[in-house]
Amino acid sequence: MTIAIYPGSFDPVHNGHIDIAERAALVFEKLVISVYARPFKNVLFTPEERTQLVRESVTHLPNVQVLSYDCLTVDFCREQHAQVIVRGMRMSSDFDLEYQMALTNKALAPDVETVCLFTNLTRAYLSSSTVKQIAIAGGDLTGMVPEHVRRALDVKLSEES
Amino acid sequence: MTIAIYPGSFDPVHNGHIDIAERAALVFEKLVISVYARPFKNVLFTPEERTQLVRESVTHLPNVQVLSYDCLTVDFCREQHAQVIVRGMRMSSDFDLEYQMALTNKALAPDVETVCLFTNLTRAYLSSSTVKQIAIAGGDLTGMVPEHVRRALDVKLSEES
Amino acid sequence: MTIAIYPGSFDPVHNGHIDIAERAALVFEKLVISVYARPFKNVLFTPEERTQLVRESVTHLPNVQVLSYDCLTVDFCREQHAQVIVRGMRMSSDFDLEYQMALTNKALAPDVETVCLFTNLTRAYLSSSTVKQIAIAGGDLTGMVPEHVRRALDVKLSEES
Amino acid sequence: MTIAIYPGSFDPVHNGHIDIAERAALVFEKLVISVYARPFKNVLFTPEERTQLVRESVTHLPNVQVLSYDCLTVDFCREQHAQVIVRGMRMSSDFDLEYQMALTNKALAPDVETVCLFTNLTRAYLSSSTVKQIAIAGGDLTGMVPEHVRRALDVKLSEES
Amino acid sequence: MTIAIYPGSFDPVHNGHIDIAERAALVFEKLVISVYARPFKNVLFTPEERTQLVRESVTHLPNVQVLSYDCLTVDFCREQHAQVIVRGMRMSSDFDLEYQMALTNKALAPDVETVCLFTNLTRAYLSSSTVKQIAIAGGDLTGMVPEHVRRALDVKLSEES
Amino acid sequence: MTIAIYPGSFDPVHNGHIDIAERAALVFEKLVISVYARPFKNVLFTPEERTQLVRESVTHLPNVQVLSYDCLTVDFCREQHAQVIVRGMRMSSDFDLEYQMALTNKALAPDVETVCLFTNLTRAYLSSSTVKQIAIAGGDLTGMVPEHVRRALDVKLSEES
Repeated sequence: MTIAIYPGSFDPVHNGHIDIAERAALVFEKLVISVYARPFKNVLFTPEERTQLVRESVTHLPNVQVLSYDCLTVDFCREQHAQVIVRGMRMSSDFDLEYQMALTNKALAPDVETVCLFTNLTRAYLSSSTVKQIAIAGGDLTGMVPEHVRRALDVKLSEES
Repeated sequence: MTIAIYPGSFDPVHNGHIDIAERAALVFEKLVISVYARPFKNVLFTPEERTQLVRESVTHLPNVQVLSYDCLTVDFCREQHAQVIVRGMRMSSDFDLEYQMALTNKALAPDVETVCLFTNLTRAYLSSSTVKQIAIAGGDLTGMVPEHVRRALDVKLSEES
Repeated sequence: MTIAIYPGSFDPVHNGHIDIAERAALVFEKLVISVYARPFKNVLFTPEERTQLVRESVTHLPNVQVLSYDCLTVDFCREQHAQVIVRGMRMSSDFDLEYQMALTNKALAPDVETVCLFTNLTRAYLSSSTVKQIAIAGGDLTGMVPEHVRRALDVKLSEES
Repeated sequence: MTIAIYPGSFDPVHNGHIDIAERAALVFEKLVISVYARPFKNVLFTPEERTQLVRESVTHLPNVQVLSYDCLTVDFCREQHAQVIVRGMRMSSDFDLEYQMALTNKALAPDVETVCLFTNLTRAYLSSSTVKQIAIAGGDLTGMVPEHVRRALDVKLSEES
Repeated sequence: MTIAIYPGSFDPVHNGHIDIAERAALVFEKLVISVYARPFKNVLFTPEERTQLVRESVTHLPNVQVLSYDCLTVDFCREQHAQVIVRGMRMSSDFDLEYQMALTNKALAPDVETVCLFTNLTRAYLSSSTVKQIAIAGGDLTGMVPEHVRRALDVKLSEES
Repeated sequence: MTIAIYPGSFDPVHNGHIDIAERAALVFEKLVISVYARPFKNVLFTPEERTQLVRESVTHLPNVQVLSYDCLTVDFCREQHAQVIVRGMRMSSDFDLEYQMALTNKALAPDVETVCLFTNLTRAYLSSSTVKQIAIAGGDLTGMVPEHVRRALDVKLSEES
């Protein structure tokens, strides 16, 4: 059985992430969406909030689990007995970053393979920071995030201001 | 009549921006240089200062107006009855970012077209952050920014230190 | 009045080209789709065939004209009293090539501006060579080319084999 | 069971291809290396030779089969009951081409997923054309191709000259 | 005699930097590794610490000197009577940034040449921020930094937490 | 003494090549411009013509020699006792190709270093194929090639037609 993890900060999860999770869930027997608890960049949501928002987004995928982690990605991979790290690629500017991460992870854990899936074209422009910028400016997020994420952004941004 | 907006943070305006504005003013009947008031990144100048520095830089272009805005770019576009968003491209690393913005704006406003103009090669290396780094290190900004922007940088940086 | 030319080899025209022509026809007063008669690369269709296939594809665009040309693009631009060369960009690998062409044309004709429009995401994967490869392998071209282009490919490829 | 195909022209197979096949054979239950019989570009070896050279290179991988095909890649995929197309990526210039192919294949067969694996860094510079250029110039191919491929190149190139 | 400087923030120095220094030391008569004292980005180590860590890493290179500087890179270049700025390139995403810096430096000092060396493939994934992220997560830095840098990271990170 | 070779097909030499040769002649003690006799791609000029056109272009550079070669670049490098291969980079699309070549050469000859110089921005759009395309279409080559190359193109193209 091939187990894969899909790591990220998911701040918040958007439809491009869900698209990749759906694809990976078809290709691998088990998928663990792995929410990195303490990314270097500033985050809007707490690790618990980010994990919960992902969890509500993938209830339709029976072989997908959502967990938060706080160690090296390759160490979490081993903890989950996963052989594969899944990444979604949107545009070529992602490539070098993904390559560098894949090589770093390969140097740290030669037995773990990174595989990339391509985001659906109609989602290729989506990123968590785009979503946050549009939310802050009061724009329409229809088709970009699930309804429960839209509501969470509303609540969080009204708290912040 | 085709009305275009040229949005950006302009912190501060430099000769590459002015080059794009001059080109766009030839191609479109009316151009509104649109200074985004609250960009995510840290800015050195206030929205009023940034707007004023742009305004002084384009007094030779009769069909160009300079305004500050505080909403989604596509909403400002509609407010100005503009059909076109103008962007300048310098190098290929700009491309993916511009593509992502163009697609986001297209998702938000299907009736607004993004058009890209190419910066003159002799200006292709210029960016506002390069300009600020050189100014901080006391370098010579001749040919990079207009004289009034150079003076504004001197004043601002002596205030800050 | 801003006149623009949209040059290319169009061997054959596909829905991505038509998408760009429709966008450019909204932005500029007059658009001349300019079919380059003798491109360096091998072509499947004659200049007359390529021109005719484009012409049938844009009958719904009243301010668009289709012509064939055999000289430098910038010289054809001047002949047509056009101030603008329109190019469509699909992916970042297009960028450097377009930049090089824009700069070459700017060196040859400083008064002509190159503007780039972004292809709709759902067309971003289309190219004339992809279309020809799928046609040769007997694949389904629905949504990729207009019906009359599909028929022309059928006829041409049965002649060739 | 996830079945994957790994398509290419393999003219000839090199150690970078074998590296990807080994990785894919670990991730998927069955892998069909699929030698495209009639690529657009000029090839040095016949389809039979190319298929045989691959076959001799993967005898150590029990879940890998090598077949030649002559139709659309997605049609061969369905014929083999494969859900996945495997591709190896070496450098960022590969990305856009792979993305375009993935999207074309997705348009032709929405149920087939393209997944990319990253070539080992020490193989990242290898390509079939590099191998052929070095062979023609009489350079040392140690570490670039298996011994039986080196011999096949010697024989083929002495025939040609 | 060609004197070259190799500027950077070196926060901290890693084996990719040392690889480039070794190559440059073979090509140029004298190399001055130039530690920029006040980079824009946040740094973990003080200028003195960064300089000392580099110095201990290149004791085996007799024609290499390590200095800290606090002015424009081109001004430091002139101060050192250097004709050349050395840069290491790892991946294509570095290219545009390096090109922009090279052009900015050329605009400021036409007599100084920027030359790029290619990092060894097995080091191509290394960056100072990767090193810091792995150190923070408690990962194994073997083969990424010299032993004395690993110890300095341990000390610094235990101070910080 | 550092000896460098500057290899290429030079079909024909243009002002971008000459710019790189002038820069390299300042950085290295001796430079051998190395005209590859039998490139894979089609060439317009014979090896003798290409070598002669380069030779006439660098008579002002006393430490520059021009030779033709017919073997692996790294073997020619050793024959000339050169430690360095010089390459000029224009745009980021050049990067991956140059990286691949540098790595291939490093695999074949670990003792030879590849160094890249950046073409002057005002020459960044120049390539031999652009030059040939403009010449064929009767365009103005002023500022792109030396006068003797322009004449050679006239003669060659009138012979061909």
